[in-house]
Amino acid sequence: MAKAATNANDEAQIRARLNEWVRASQAKDLDAIMASYAPDVLAFDAIGKLEFRGVEAYRKHWEECLSYCEEMRFEMHDLEIAAEGGLAFCHYLARCGGTSKDGQEHYGWMRGTVCLRKTNSTWLIVHEHYSSPFDPMSGKMLNLEPEHETRAAA
Amino acid sequence: MAKAATNANDEAQIRARLNEWVRASQAKDLDAIMASYAPDVLAFDAIGKLEFRGVEAYRKHWEECLSYCEEMRFEMHDLEIAAEGGLAFCHYLARCGGTSKDGQEHYGWMRGTVCLRKTNSTWLIVHEHYSSPFDPMSGKMLNLEPEHETRAAA
Repeated sequence: MAKAATNANDEAQIRARLNEWVRASQAKDLDAIMASYAPDVLAFDAIGKLEFRGVEAYRKHWEECLSYCEEMRFEMHDLEIAAEGGLAFCHYLARCGGTSKDGQEHYGWMRGTVCLRKTNSTWLIVHEHYSSPFDPMSGKMLNLEPEHETRAAA
Repeated sequence: MAKAATNANDEAQIRARLNEWVRASQAKDLDAIMASYAPDVLAFDAIGKLEFRGVEAYRKHWEECLSYCEEMRFEMHDLEIAAEGGLAFCHYLARCGGTSKDGQEHYGWMRGTVCLRKTNSTWLIVHEHYSSPFDPMSGKMLNLEPEHETRAAA
């Protein structure tokens, strides 16, 4: 993704925002997770519904997701950031999963796209898309590994 | 999604780009589809692989996808566009499907995110994310309808 126009300071701020989001997710800190989102966020998550409109609807969904897992792990790989003016978009591969309440470990690779807007010098997530590819024949989610060696987690 | 900074001319050009992409997809016109993508596009598609890096890899994938269907239908709903400077991102819901070679019709709702960059006055897609949510219990793709009435197709 061509990055020529991306200001190093904006990139650093966005990277910090995403790192804090990863930290908060692993800590299951709902308030800290939600602090990354704009009030009018529109989210396409991997599970639950086609879309979540607005931070209240998305908070309820996050709360439900966090309740599934005793422990959460989330690694962001191959993060690329493009920013210009007050707009930015990013994409990454995620190795994520956790330990469910019955003690079973579940891990897989997912894909994330995050779009941000800068308001009052603060970058907030206005759109998020998180998914796994599926097999069109069986309709089942594919448990795939990246084909290249990913860069270390952010 | 706050649109205050989006220039009406940029929005019109991006809308035209996406309309042409829809037309080309329904016409199964591979060259015209690929003309929308930047050489270094990074795509997260709903099927096949975790990611497709570069227009050659993505072209091969598109070719395979087009071979599944006798006829393709693609409606873009609720398209929202944000653009600033040379960067833009968009999201939409898609009602899509087609008639497979055995005459069966398959339709469903999907979600799309498209990120573009303007190079030499032309908007090209540098990142695309297309998916369906799945049921975390069964691992199966969910066949969901939007909860709100969608706006007419673009």
